[in-house]
Amino acid sequence: MRLPLRSCCIFTSLIPQKQTTDVHRRGLSGAAMRLVQFRRSGYADGVRVGVEQGEGLGVVDLKAFDPSMPLTVRELLQLGDKGLECAQRALASGQFVVDRANIQLLSPILAPEKVVCVGMNYRDHCLEQNAPIPKEPIIFSKFPSAITGPYDDIVLPPESQEVDWEVELAFVIGRRGKCIKEEDALSYVAGFTVANDVSARDWQMKRNGQQWLLSKTFDSFCPLGPALVTADAVKDPHNLGIRCLVNGDTVQSSNTSQMIFKIAALIAWVSKFVTLTPGDVFLTGTPPGVGVFRNPPVFLKKGDVVECQIDQLGSIINKVI
Amino acid sequence: MRLPLRSCCIFTSLIPQKQTTDVHRRGLSGAAMRLVQFRRSGYADGVRVGVEQGEGLGVVDLKAFDPSMPLTVRELLQLGDKGLECAQRALASGQFVVDRANIQLLSPILAPEKVVCVGMNYRDHCLEQNAPIPKEPIIFSKFPSAITGPYDDIVLPPESQEVDWEVELAFVIGRRGKCIKEEDALSYVAGFTVANDVSARDWQMKRNGQQWLLSKTFDSFCPLGPALVTADAVKDPHNLGIRCLVNGDTVQSSNTSQMIFKIAALIAWVSKFVTLTPGDVFLTGTPPGVGVFRNPPVFLKKGDVVECQIDQLGSIINKVI
Repeated sequence: MRLPLRSCCIFTSLIPQKQTTDVHRRGLSGAAMRLVQFRRSGYADGVRVGVEQGEGLGVVDLKAFDPSMPLTVRELLQLGDKGLECAQRALASGQFVVDRANIQLLSPILAPEKVVCVGMNYRDHCLEQNAPIPKEPIIFSKFPSAITGPYDDIVLPPESQEVDWEVELAFVIGRRGKCIKEEDALSYVAGFTVANDVSARDWQMKRNGQQWLLSKTFDSFCPLGPALVTADAVKDPHNLGIRCLVNGDTVQSSNTSQMIFKIAALIAWVSKFVTLTPGDVFLTGTPPGVGVFRNPPVFLKKGDVVECQIDQLGSIINKVI
Repeated sequence: MRLPLRSCCIFTSLIPQKQTTDVHRRGLSGAAMRLVQFRRSGYADGVRVGVEQGEGLGVVDLKAFDPSMPLTVRELLQLGDKGLECAQRALASGQFVVDRANIQLLSPILAPEKVVCVGMNYRDHCLEQNAPIPKEPIIFSKFPSAITGPYDDIVLPPESQEVDWEVELAFVIGRRGKCIKEEDALSYVAGFTVANDVSARDWQMKRNGQQWLLSKTFDSFCPLGPALVTADAVKDPHNLGIRCLVNGDTVQSSNTSQMIFKIAALIAWVSKFVTLTPGDVFLTGTPPGVGVFRNPPVFLKKGDVVECQIDQLGSIINKVI
């Protein structure tokens, strides 16, 4: 669905003009990469940026390849072309590869300025709850503190008895922008990853004055990963199989083609309100099959294992504790 | 209102134990300061931390006093004792004072992980809209990108015809914590400042599936300042006159004693959901007198000047453009 765009936004002149990242505009095929963040076992240091040699394969340590490079993907994206080109050279070098056994994979993005979420964005998900198809995107948020790694635990809070799963396609903003036109919007996407928009339904539906924030933002309620797959590596983000499995049983299975508001429309819409910056994460909504609308409803319990899969991006697997 | 606290939170053991900031626990009177952030006119550099010699007086440049000190208040708070003690020495030195005529005062906090907002938190504000007094805090958020300086412009977006004012007491978190007990909560407050929770009522009440986020988070919709007044400088944050003036006319006038959920209760409540970190900003709700509930309703228009005042903290003055 295309959204009507009003006349040019008055903020434009207020935004500091940063260097644009031409790599996105050119759509260099050489920019196809799987960026990760990891922590080295046995070292006291923190987050490092890596480039996967392939899904589940060795990880090139970017800082080891070039000590002038930053330690986080967010900072790498802020460098624009320069950062991504260096990451490509690091990958091509085949050197400074760390074994996956010696690292802990973290979320590919941490401490973004924004985690923008979209509600009711799959047609079938609206139908399963007898809700009308929204005419405009419904935007809410999580705090960045909710983000956790692709294989980290989802911690059930004692405050909720109704914690539910939601597999979602996530994308990450690669350059700064405001009032972005829909036709330019995809050039602002750095890449894609898999998200689980974990949701406490009791808090979402019955508490906090129906404001969804709290229900969605408990610590550990935003597993992301395993990699930030750069935009050039994904031919059509709106034709990806998307699935959620709980203890091995498929509970959600759809395709990103079913999204009501597509990626470009979401960027154009949200950037009418706020300036987007590198590292901002968008969660694009979940397909049908969540626990709360089952008969009887099903919620996550300790010991459950939730796996969220998206074609070409990979899987995140999180145990519920 | 005291909120019931459940049994100890299970997250506690997962939180990295950071050095505690004893300065908050001791309540050192020497820690009474007005921290600001500023940009130097005629320099190409960015944000710097300052300590005001008094409201509206000269500003001691912390980085000039001690080059090992950080450039932002958020990083200063992350240093705990060490940072605040250095700021006190800088103030006591009486040196490295920059003239206010040569600086632009910025928001005293920028790029926090969270801007936590509380809805319907003044008894009279509930009454003016015929809404019941909430039994639990109603928590929503703004994106950090909404923050603007104490004398910066509020930019009316073309997407809204109903932009309204809301003077609010804001406080800033000084140390990391989760599941904080109400009796310990005040020791987590670094200080206080004045906020305007600018709100697009059309978007808040009629759009975005009644999720308040978008209505509250347009760029420039969170003026903050003029200083972060440290907790030790404010004897009783629940006995402060709080006012909003539009073009010189007083439109809101109340006292922070009227808050339904007090600061300690809010910290205890929110920290059941999320880990709080230094720099997190809380906006504690607005008293009666907002434009939307006037008869007829009044909204901000280009050229208006909005002044938000809180006793002991100061004023922020923002022109609407």
